[in-house]
Amino acid sequence: MFESAELGHKIDKATYKREIPPLREALLDAQIDLLQSQRFPVIILIAGVDCAGKGETVNILNEWMDPRHIETHAIRELTDEEQERPPMWRYWRDLPPKGKIGIFIGTWYSSPLIENVYGSIKNAELDQNLERIIRFEKMLCDEGALFLKFWLHLSEKQQKKRLKSLEKDPSTSWRVTDTDWKHFKMYDRFHQVSERMLRATSSPEAPWLIVEGSDPRYRYLTIGKAVLQALRQRLDAPEAPVREEPYPPITLAIDGLRILQTLDLSKRLPKSEYQEELEKWQGRLNRLSRHPQFKKISVVVIFEGNDAAGKGGAIRRITQALDARLYRVTPIAAPTDEEQRQPYLWRFWRHLPHRGRFAIFDRSWYGRVLVERVEGYCSHVDWMRAYGEINDYEEQLVRHYTVVVKFWLAIDREEQLKRFKEREKIGFKRFKITDDDWRNRDKWEEYELAVCDMIDRTSTEIAPWTLVEANDKNYARIKVLKTLCTRIESSLGKDSGN
Amino acid sequence: MFESAELGHKIDKATYKREIPPLREALLDAQIDLLQSQRFPVIILIAGVDCAGKGETVNILNEWMDPRHIETHAIRELTDEEQERPPMWRYWRDLPPKGKIGIFIGTWYSSPLIENVYGSIKNAELDQNLERIIRFEKMLCDEGALFLKFWLHLSEKQQKKRLKSLEKDPSTSWRVTDTDWKHFKMYDRFHQVSERMLRATSSPEAPWLIVEGSDPRYRYLTIGKAVLQALRQRLDAPEAPVREEPYPPITLAIDGLRILQTLDLSKRLPKSEYQEELEKWQGRLNRLSRHPQFKKISVVVIFEGNDAAGKGGAIRRITQALDARLYRVTPIAAPTDEEQRQPYLWRFWRHLPHRGRFAIFDRSWYGRVLVERVEGYCSHVDWMRAYGEINDYEEQLVRHYTVVVKFWLAIDREEQLKRFKEREKIGFKRFKITDDDWRNRDKWEEYELAVCDMIDRTSTEIAPWTLVEANDKNYARIKVLKTLCTRIESSLGKDSGN
Repeated sequence: MFESAELGHKIDKATYKREIPPLREALLDAQIDLLQSQRFPVIILIAGVDCAGKGETVNILNEWMDPRHIETHAIRELTDEEQERPPMWRYWRDLPPKGKIGIFIGTWYSSPLIENVYGSIKNAELDQNLERIIRFEKMLCDEGALFLKFWLHLSEKQQKKRLKSLEKDPSTSWRVTDTDWKHFKMYDRFHQVSERMLRATSSPEAPWLIVEGSDPRYRYLTIGKAVLQALRQRLDAPEAPVREEPYPPITLAIDGLRILQTLDLSKRLPKSEYQEELEKWQGRLNRLSRHPQFKKISVVVIFEGNDAAGKGGAIRRITQALDARLYRVTPIAAPTDEEQRQPYLWRFWRHLPHRGRFAIFDRSWYGRVLVERVEGYCSHVDWMRAYGEINDYEEQLVRHYTVVVKFWLAIDREEQLKRFKEREKIGFKRFKITDDDWRNRDKWEEYELAVCDMIDRTSTEIAPWTLVEANDKNYARIKVLKTLCTRIESSLGKDSGN
Repeated sequence: MFESAELGHKIDKATYKREIPPLREALLDAQIDLLQSQRFPVIILIAGVDCAGKGETVNILNEWMDPRHIETHAIRELTDEEQERPPMWRYWRDLPPKGKIGIFIGTWYSSPLIENVYGSIKNAELDQNLERIIRFEKMLCDEGALFLKFWLHLSEKQQKKRLKSLEKDPSTSWRVTDTDWKHFKMYDRFHQVSERMLRATSSPEAPWLIVEGSDPRYRYLTIGKAVLQALRQRLDAPEAPVREEPYPPITLAIDGLRILQTLDLSKRLPKSEYQEELEKWQGRLNRLSRHPQFKKISVVVIFEGNDAAGKGGAIRRITQALDARLYRVTPIAAPTDEEQRQPYLWRFWRHLPHRGRFAIFDRSWYGRVLVERVEGYCSHVDWMRAYGEINDYEEQLVRHYTVVVKFWLAIDREEQLKRFKEREKIGFKRFKITDDDWRNRDKWEEYELAVCDMIDRTSTEIAPWTLVEANDKNYARIKVLKTLCTRIESSLGKDSGN
């Protein structure tokens, strides 16, 4: 894979001097178009062999373009706020919004590479990590990001020469560390693992671009031109190309039997039993939240359900049991403009809890495959890929000691009508019935289909859906509390698997 | 001060049971009005004597109202990200946006109180801390926040009784710590310092409300009713009351002589000298950024100036000298909707750098006293108070090991006209001349007055303005670099004072 990057590419000074001014002009031009159109974010990764000039290259890109609209992120020690979240959280925080450029040095490739070279993870685990990276990058691309991944390569001879020359010059000698020499002695091993990694993670949307690193002029010019070309291509393409829909939805339930219909919505809990059960389960939940092991996990609870199914009431039965310092309830409304400039999952990553805390979502990332699907806010391809993206997201949470509990609160059409009418009569503003509610009701069938698909595609062993029969509020609330307790109990004291 | 809170207030069970349902109803009602109108944020502090029921009270408020629109923040260990910023940063992060309620337990009062009681800060320093708190709270109130500060009080006898009864019950004994008993033995001292603190920080906008803590029913009902009353008063007041302008601006420069006019804009730097100086100062800046002591400070650089004064070019001469991993340039554009729901300084607090980093602002918080003043985007009272608020803000930065460097780039009307015309001719999109630019130009006089006021009122010993003669770009760029280097040098190795 590195053959073409060991040919001794060189650009002479005169050519360089001649080519730079128009390149800079064109790059600035493209950057302004990007900024003004705000059509997509640009993510540039700069990775490669030690001392192949990654930092210098990033500095040049900042110099050539307008640094006010570039954010550079280097790998560094995790802060404790980052340690309490899944490993990718730090990168989500740093994603550039639409119209901006984010440059990452090192990034999500660093630790799998190093760990495999050092032997702390085997090839199978390396491949598992790479597979996750592929899915992450694909998601970003599908969400519109322009992705450029540069790998700066040096042959063994070139690297040795470079380390020595940096070391000799007093102004750069500080840049060569013992680790660099240690890694140099492991050149073959690094070479081998890097190749495996690049091969596995080069995709049509986000290909690796391998650049010979020994001649700075060649390196800068190559990368500058590649960035320009990619930017220009995307900017000049027609806006928001309509996605083809190659795979129209296929109906499986030819007999009309759906999972939601199997629920016995007549389930009831008499008031007398309810009070007793409520105290019992709320007490249990409270004790669990003060369990010594609870500090090591976090809990994400999401509520979805038909309109008027009683999500708010169920949430309140949970928060009543907890110290207010331990939870945060996030109602999901329309995204803010900062959120609209990011991939759709970004606004949920923001709200992930510290360890020892609960994050409760009133509606959630499943909006993508429910309201956005039914109302046509995103294309078929977009919501189809969301199932996998959501599963990946939840897998990351679970791997990072998070208990993910998902409730679908189900009521039937008659019960909903009854509740709508009651609300209209009482006229509480907090239960205001809007035209939207009535409109959603007219799409009952479509929503039901979407819910069934959602359950089939995202109810996983690590993050199962709990369907809650909610025609009777008391029954629903107790089932919610009981499920939550059981899930937390079964995770306490257990190490999260991989 | 605590006389009325030692009278043995009690509410009997029957009264409580009768009063709660309508109170809850009214609170929920007010909360929905708040949420829908998004007129102001509500900040509730719950402080007081150990074990006076702070946590329980917060839980009750969450239970009575809709927890989806309340955020509860307890004092806890600082994270390392917080430690790298001024102490108030953590609270700025947690401020509720308009329409929401933020409840804080402990808060900014805790550490001055404890430190003074323990004797690690003297009264003078306590008063200094309290003065800063007063100014912080006043700013939030002026920015529209509804502020409620509850102090839960227990007499010495009541506290002893409470500690013992908590200790006796196995389900609550964990809540009584050795520290609680230690503090109890210092009751008189706590009493004395708390009183001093409450007295000093009770203001018309944010008065302390002292509540006897021994009877839970009395405590809950009192606080619930107070919250309701305050919410209702504000919600029912006419929207956006027009502020009176009691102090119309007074003109001092009766002879028409202004600071900006004293600048010698004919200052030039020949190109030959420029190249040499540029290399010299960029080299120096680069070395400073790699100075071992540099990791302990951070640098905030802000650029203001006439349109077309060359801010972008000057910024680029700084970034060229630095490793891209060490700086972030933030161009200040219109606030996002998340920013609009917060006090105007909030969006600048967000961008404060880690230690060892530069934050460069292209325009800044001074927009408040420049464009917002001249264009009438805020009232006279609002921009007049901004001078003090900005000085307070910068003082916090400086006290927290931040070098604050502020540049005003000045050109004259002729030079601006020349540059506007050049830009129109070349037609670079990045230098697009808009109608706004021409309009601002017509208001030259008003802007000049605003700039002079700004300099007089915010050029301080700890964060002075540097006026840069910018008719000649080369001269301006070198002056900027030189000033920046000198300011960093003078702060390296020195401890920041108090």
